[in-house]
Formats: sequence, structure tokens, C-alpha cells
Amino acid sequence: MVSKAVVKYVHALQQKKYRLRHGAFLVEGGKSVRELLSSGLLTERVFLTAEFAAKIGQELPAGVPVEIISEAELTQLGTLSTNNTALAVARIPAEPALPTSAAGLLLALDEVRDPGNLGTLIRLADWYGLTGIVCSETCADPWNPKTVAATMGSFTRVRIWQRELPQWLGTFPAATPIYGADLAGDNVHRLALAPEGVLVMGSESHGLRPEVHARLTRRLHIPGRGGAESLNVAVSAGILLDNFFRQL
Amino acid sequence: MVSKAVVKYVHALQQKKYRLRHGAFLVEGGKSVRELLSSGLLTERVFLTAEFAAKIGQELPAGVPVEIISEAELTQLGTLSTNNTALAVARIPAEPALPTSAAGLLLALDEVRDPGNLGTLIRLADWYGLTGIVCSETCADPWNPKTVAATMGSFTRVRIWQRELPQWLGTFPAATPIYGADLAGDNVHRLALAPEGVLVMGSESHGLRPEVHARLTRRLHIPGRGGAESLNVAVSAGILLDNFFRQL
Repeated sequence: MVSKAVVKYVHALQQKKYRLRHGAFLVEGGKSVRELLSSGLLTERVFLTAEFAAKIGQELPAGVPVEIISEAELTQLGTLSTNNTALAVARIPAEPALPTSAAGLLLALDEVRDPGNLGTLIRLADWYGLTGIVCSETCADPWNPKTVAATMGSFTRVRIWQRELPQWLGTFPAATPIYGADLAGDNVHRLALAPEGVLVMGSESHGLRPEVHARLTRRLHIPGRGGAESLNVAVSAGILLDNFFRQL
Repeated sequence: MVSKAVVKYVHALQQKKYRLRHGAFLVEGGKSVRELLSSGLLTERVFLTAEFAAKIGQELPAGVPVEIISEAELTQLGTLSTNNTALAVARIPAEPALPTSAAGLLLALDEVRDPGNLGTLIRLADWYGLTGIVCSETCADPWNPKTVAATMGSFTRVRIWQRELPQWLGTFPAATPIYGADLAGDNVHRLALAPEGVLVMGSESHGLRPEVHARLTRRLHIPGRGGAESLNVAVSAGILLDNFFRQL
């Protein structure tokens, strides 16, 4: 039986305001909680069903409070429609130093407001081993439970920064390539792209803000041949990244 | 003021059972409703705010009942958290004949249960002008409001069939290539792929069912270099399709 104070705390972490205030976030579901426990992130506490505890008992770290609760209680505690495995509270990691020269490829996101898309992009950055992701301050919160769930565990590995993008993009030497998707850009199939610099992706509905678009040094176009006007932002980013990493 | 009977009908269409019974589905939001009105699909009725009606009045087809309602009523009628533009009821189109030889590329989806992913895949199929999508009967409903919203209008252009996949994949001549993503497959960067045949994509969590996997004639691998075990199904499909269409 979870105490009322703890229920209140966990529920509060569903909101960004309280995540910032407490410096903590929720990790829901068995796979994500296992990734958390085997990562370098700090875990505050874990809630498990008895069945899932039996399965992962060996992985539980010493010194972290663990509570065994019913599936109904677990579901009531979190945001998933059902949860028969686990939920954890983890500490939001301190922001690492942001690279000032873009050795490797950084992904920059301008106003990506949907947490599911942001999470899918974090998973994608992990797949390609990118240096990290720089989000505009108007992006979805990287520590929103929906974002964390969509990363499928990659929240433990990908470094994320929040910056005012136009200003930050202006800090690079002129020689640093700053790429962005643009329907009028160069056909990516005709270019030999190297994974160095910054790739900027915009929001679904509005594309890049003009002040961000103005910072691009190279515009990339994914050739299509059908009726859709655009692609989902994570799908576009995936296709572009595959083009960056195909020479290797 | 929408009548109680109409409210009840529109609300019922949020459920698959009633969509099937009535042969109708919901289209929500200004962009999607405009795509519907300019498509070959049949529109049963349209609900608009006065503001949006002023914007698109010219596009409203003759003979379709139109009702101007408040933003509050519109939001209450549909599934979006807010809607200040439009909602329509459209007829589910009759299923076209399914090609028996795969001229062009068909996308087949095995147990893609998330409506957002299915919608993103429909949008992607539209981008590449694929022949259509064949869904296993365990996929999300193509006419679910969340699927329709995620297609960003592509629901009007992409042909969709529902089939028992293992049986259907068995109907092709042995020479037809049946592609699928597989971590142990061939590196897509080293192949010259032509957009002919069938590309099968599986569910996020379980991959292809063994009886579907057994039908593949060519397994494809997207090279990654980071920590993620897999990619989102729509992102993987996007990367693979870009590889199919890069020779053209």
C-alpha cells in the first residue's frame, strides 16, 4: 500500500512544473524500468508487481527503496492505461557541457511539440549514436512520461540540451555545416553527406521558424513521388540520418 | 445546435464496431476535412465553426449537409482535445481489387496496433506513391480517428486492404520479392533495391510473427551504431523505402 504522500508526489511528476521543482521524472513499464536500473541514472524509488519483481529481482540495485504493489495500484499511480510490471522515479540528470564545435553530428529540434515524436527522435539518435539532441525551449519536455515511453529505453543514453536555437546556431564557425530539411533543397541521394555538423528538424505543422531556417548552410530534400506534402518529423529525420551514415 | 440523435451517431463512430456497422468514419481538424472535401471520398455531413466556414466556404460541395456550430460543441463532438475548425463524417470506401501480382511496391503491416504509427505509415506510403498497404487483421483500424489524424490527409489517397498476411503472402509467384526488416538481414546500403514486390513491416514489440517471417525472400538490415535495439516501425519503413527509391 503506497502512502498518500508518495501517491501525491508521483502524480505531481506527471506535470512539467513539478518535474522541474523536484528534479525527478517517471519511468513506466518493465522494459524502460530495466533500462533505467542498468543505466548510470539515479533511481529514487521503484514500484513493482510481485510477478515482475520475481522476474527482475536480481537487477534491483542496493539502497533504492522498492515497493511491491498490485497491478491496480501501479496503474493508478502512473499514466499508462494498464501497467502490470513496474514504475520508477528517477533523477533528471545534470546537463552535460554542450559541445561548442560539432565533432560528430548533433540533432537540433525546432518546436517539436509532440512528446511521442520527441521520444521517437531520441530513440533514433541513440540508434545512430549521435552526439546528442539540442531542443528549442518550445519542444515537448524530454522528461514527459510519453516522451520517455516513446524512447523505448534510449532516454538513458542520449544527451539532451535545451537552447534558444537561432542564437545557439549562430555560435558555430562558418565552416560548420548546418543542415535542414527543405522541399526546395538538394536531393539527398545526389550528395555524399558526412555525419559532422548539425541537422535541424522542424515542427510538423509549421516547419522551421524563419530565424532558424536562416541559419542553415545546406538544405536537404528527400525525393518523393506521391501525394503527401510532407513526412512525419521522425520519419524525415530517420531517412536523412540513413543518408548521413551510408558512406561509413 | 446539433440534435441529440446526431451527437449520438457521431460519438458512436469513435468505436470500430459502429464504424463497421454504419460504414462511416470521422475526419477531424481543418486540414483533414479540406483534404476530404477535395477527394473522391463521399462526405455525409460537415460541422464547422463560423470562422472556419468563412475561410473554406467555397470548397463546400453541394448536397452535403453543413452545420455551423460553436468551438465548444465541435470539441464536444469529436476526439481532439480542442477543435476550432471542422469535423466531418465520411463513408468508408469500398475495398478496391487487391493486385495479385506486385507491380510496384506494396507495404504489408503485421500487427501494427498503434493507430498513430499506422497513420504515419499511410502518410509515408502516400509520399512514395506506393500501390497500397495490406494490413493484418490485428493491425489498428485504418478508420480510427487517431489513425486518420496521423495520416495528415493521406487517408484520401492510399488504398488499404485487410488480409490474413501469411496466407496472402503465399499467393505470390516464387519470383516476387518479399522483403522484411531483420537485424540479421543484408545491409541495405550494399543492395540495389527496386520498388517491386512486397515490403513487410512488423509490430514494435514483437517483430514479425514466425509464420509471416517465413514468407520473406529477402531480409534487410538498416546499419546503426548506437545503443538502441530497434527503431520505430514508421521510421524503419521510411529508411527502407528511401533505399528502394534512390535508384530512380
